[in-house]
Amino acid sequence: MTTGPITGSTKAYREVEHPGVDVPLRVPFRRVHLSDGDHLDLYDTSGPYTDTDAVIDLDAGLTPRPGVVRDRGTQLQRARAGEITAEMAFIAEREGVPAELVRSEVARGRAVIPANHNHPESEPMIIGKAFGVKVNANIGNSAVTSSIAEEVDKMVWATRWGADTIMDLSTGRDIHLTREWILRNSPVPVGTVPMYQALEKVNGDPTKLSWDVYRDTVIEQCEQGVDYMTVHAGVLLRHIPLTVDRVTGIVSRGGSIMAAWCLAHHTESFLYTNFEELCEIFARYDVTFSLGDGLRPGSIADANDAAQFAELRTLGELTTIAKNHGVQVMIEGPGHVPMHKIVENVRLEEELCDDAPFYTLGPLATDIAPAYDHITSAIGAAIIAQAGTAMLCYVTPKEHLGLPNRQDVKDGVIAYKIAAHSADLAKGHPRAQQRDDALSKARFEFRWHDQFALSLDPDTAREFHDETLPAEPAKTAHFCSMCGPKFCSMRITADLKDSIREAMDQKSAEFAEQGNRVYLPLTS
Amino acid sequence: MTTGPITGSTKAYREVEHPGVDVPLRVPFRRVHLSDGDHLDLYDTSGPYTDTDAVIDLDAGLTPRPGVVRDRGTQLQRARAGEITAEMAFIAEREGVPAELVRSEVARGRAVIPANHNHPESEPMIIGKAFGVKVNANIGNSAVTSSIAEEVDKMVWATRWGADTIMDLSTGRDIHLTREWILRNSPVPVGTVPMYQALEKVNGDPTKLSWDVYRDTVIEQCEQGVDYMTVHAGVLLRHIPLTVDRVTGIVSRGGSIMAAWCLAHHTESFLYTNFEELCEIFARYDVTFSLGDGLRPGSIADANDAAQFAELRTLGELTTIAKNHGVQVMIEGPGHVPMHKIVENVRLEEELCDDAPFYTLGPLATDIAPAYDHITSAIGAAIIAQAGTAMLCYVTPKEHLGLPNRQDVKDGVIAYKIAAHSADLAKGHPRAQQRDDALSKARFEFRWHDQFALSLDPDTAREFHDETLPAEPAKTAHFCSMCGPKFCSMRITADLKDSIREAMDQKSAEFAEQGNRVYLPLTS
Repeated sequence: MTTGPITGSTKAYREVEHPGVDVPLRVPFRRVHLSDGDHLDLYDTSGPYTDTDAVIDLDAGLTPRPGVVRDRGTQLQRARAGEITAEMAFIAEREGVPAELVRSEVARGRAVIPANHNHPESEPMIIGKAFGVKVNANIGNSAVTSSIAEEVDKMVWATRWGADTIMDLSTGRDIHLTREWILRNSPVPVGTVPMYQALEKVNGDPTKLSWDVYRDTVIEQCEQGVDYMTVHAGVLLRHIPLTVDRVTGIVSRGGSIMAAWCLAHHTESFLYTNFEELCEIFARYDVTFSLGDGLRPGSIADANDAAQFAELRTLGELTTIAKNHGVQVMIEGPGHVPMHKIVENVRLEEELCDDAPFYTLGPLATDIAPAYDHITSAIGAAIIAQAGTAMLCYVTPKEHLGLPNRQDVKDGVIAYKIAAHSADLAKGHPRAQQRDDALSKARFEFRWHDQFALSLDPDTAREFHDETLPAEPAKTAHFCSMCGPKFCSMRITADLKDSIREAMDQKSAEFAEQGNRVYLPLTS
Repeated sequence: MTTGPITGSTKAYREVEHPGVDVPLRVPFRRVHLSDGDHLDLYDTSGPYTDTDAVIDLDAGLTPRPGVVRDRGTQLQRARAGEITAEMAFIAEREGVPAELVRSEVARGRAVIPANHNHPESEPMIIGKAFGVKVNANIGNSAVTSSIAEEVDKMVWATRWGADTIMDLSTGRDIHLTREWILRNSPVPVGTVPMYQALEKVNGDPTKLSWDVYRDTVIEQCEQGVDYMTVHAGVLLRHIPLTVDRVTGIVSRGGSIMAAWCLAHHTESFLYTNFEELCEIFARYDVTFSLGDGLRPGSIADANDAAQFAELRTLGELTTIAKNHGVQVMIEGPGHVPMHKIVENVRLEEELCDDAPFYTLGPLATDIAPAYDHITSAIGAAIIAQAGTAMLCYVTPKEHLGLPNRQDVKDGVIAYKIAAHSADLAKGHPRAQQRDDALSKARFEFRWHDQFALSLDPDTAREFHDETLPAEPAKTAHFCSMCGPKFCSMRITADLKDSIREAMDQKSAEFAEQGNRVYLPLTS
């Protein structure tokens, strides 16, 4: 397992007090140290694993945060009551926004704080369009491959590179135990799809599922501390025929399982008919709904079709019910969507689902690049996030081909941090451009170590540079191997700066001499 | 050097005749063979290197295409005269559009056919917004690294994966000889920046440059057969002060060289003052202008600033002059641009430059991911191509860090094929979605070999699949290691198809029995 700080950074904490919050808040940042003595503090998802002073003991789990309240309802209910919770104050410091903005967005249902009372190991975070765009990383073993240790390692690894939440999608052996190890050691909220474990309990036969088995599974996972759960309650019997002429039918696992159940019993989905009871359970633990898009398009041909939008309409109804119970809700979105059809997804989601935060899987902007779907989908993800999606579910290079390994997880997270950050820039997020400016300034001044340290992946940036110019003096050299010394535009420009200023000063002097007449350019 | 067909494909040719074109046209395609006996023909940039029947002899060079005319002016002049050239007829078949569309877009200056009379080895192609979005790959050595053989290999390698043109940006030793090897063996148009060689001739001192040295270099390259040349004639003395407060100054090599010259001599750019003579030279060979954006932004902070748009206005003036000489023109664009500022670049370019094809470098949507700039820029590239950019200059993972190697070239080309194809889909390009649909259909039907063969990179797709399930039976198995057999949504859905149809038929029967009253959904 990789621990210790990211190259060029150390863990920093800000001690925060907030009126009405009676616990000490210790908000973590990744502090990037620059060679001029300055530093830049960045949002940090990596938890104690990057803190050299922290003692990591996977058997004992992470230290629970103080101030978790189990008897005062959900963050939504408390926000509506006007309360700024410890979690909200923590988040406000993390995001660099007023605590009241956090409260009001949660109260309005435009943002969620996934924080099960039974998962005190996590550091509070928020998902909503008024805040930084978040990234989820899916991990979890399948029947074919992988072990518990590998999955815990992937969780630590994914949060190291910036995953804001983790979904444990295990479907093989030891689902409960794998999840327990992940929850006790995860510094970020953990999501699941309870259907997967329920299906294991009935030996993988969807027609044998029942509300009882499902409900017991949900309660088991609530007790463990799962922060948000994907529930495919919008796949209704009447929607299924709408998928029959699709190129790729139903591509959501949960969606296909529920469709199989509905058809076998010719009965409405038990998730839909028992939704109110589910809300009561979720409210007890403050588990957040992630209403699943079981009928999302699995190909460009199926994007924005009748099946997809019929389900979205149902998710809107369910959102109202959940909010009436004081339960937090986000809405899952596609999938595979060509660029010109992406924005419509956000518009319709906001209209039908009362502005609940949108949480999309990509979308992939084309189907033709298996092995590169972290890129096809980073394109769609950046565009949909700019349009208002609050959290992006990553896609790894292994999508459609196999279970991601450690390198795939990192590649997926980095591609999605790029998409999320690009959207933050485009949305004018107040702190986003600071990092771009700091990195570009370092680049222009040939402070190579600073450029690496400020980048999303300092190790790989340095490694690529060092492939051709490994010696330490090259780290301050005014060129790299791309253009060589004579053709480095930035070196030439830096050398020119004085000449340009001289020319401008001379021009100003001439201008003053000539009696401050209208400005003439240096030459016409 | 890698030759032979891409896995799952063979080279196919269509023999085409066109009224008025008196040479036989043999238009190449990549034919993907599907397991159901069907096939799909794809646009193919790879030349004879993927043809098992071709004899490759680098010393001899590729066989010149027949019908190259050296005495009838440029493609633009001939298009204006109403002529459909052999090149236009070839391109029409390649693009699947009427030859008259090719002619009229060239005549209007909205598209260019870069085809120097002295580069008959290349297969004609077109760059314009009415056609498929194209991708350029930069290759070329620097003073620090790489050899001629490596660069020829990169050219073959880049076109294998889909590069539509190549720019040889060599700046080190043996510039002339490197270019000669590339030109004689390149099946795609070759572009250069003549300034780089001119600067070598004056030992790398920009202030020693002169119009004479530059002109002689241009003629030398025209004679060799370079198809298009980047000319930074829009960097004017009066623009330079506009860059002084930028975060990253001037980041174009050509731009910084010309700025250094202008300031040293306090004289207007010799490229600008001698532009008409340059047009006369270009017209003789039908070399296409790629008017360089020497003041493009090198960071998010500098995007869409006064310097950038002042230069663009000058490029518009130069476009008019070039077109008056019957010379084809395209316009280079940025660079580093946040998503919300991208579309404005296309709009302004079209307005100021009379709809000349736009040819952009990315743009990168954020600065913070060195080592992943093929991804940061694929996001910007897809968006700018959707808005109307005709050709995208790739960016490799080594951008800002070092000279790309073979793997970087491939990664860059694939990322850009994704961006270009995503834009083709979004623009409704008539043939684009055929490939997505064919691949998705193969995926849904578990025809793994077909899915690989239809993908941008069949080798890597297969390799990723085989990491966990290498045995041949897994190539027809109805699952992969991502979800395992029980959780494969596509298997479940496929199994359901009959039940859904049964349910629908039953419903139809009931409907008929009930006297064809208004349609009732399966359940309410």
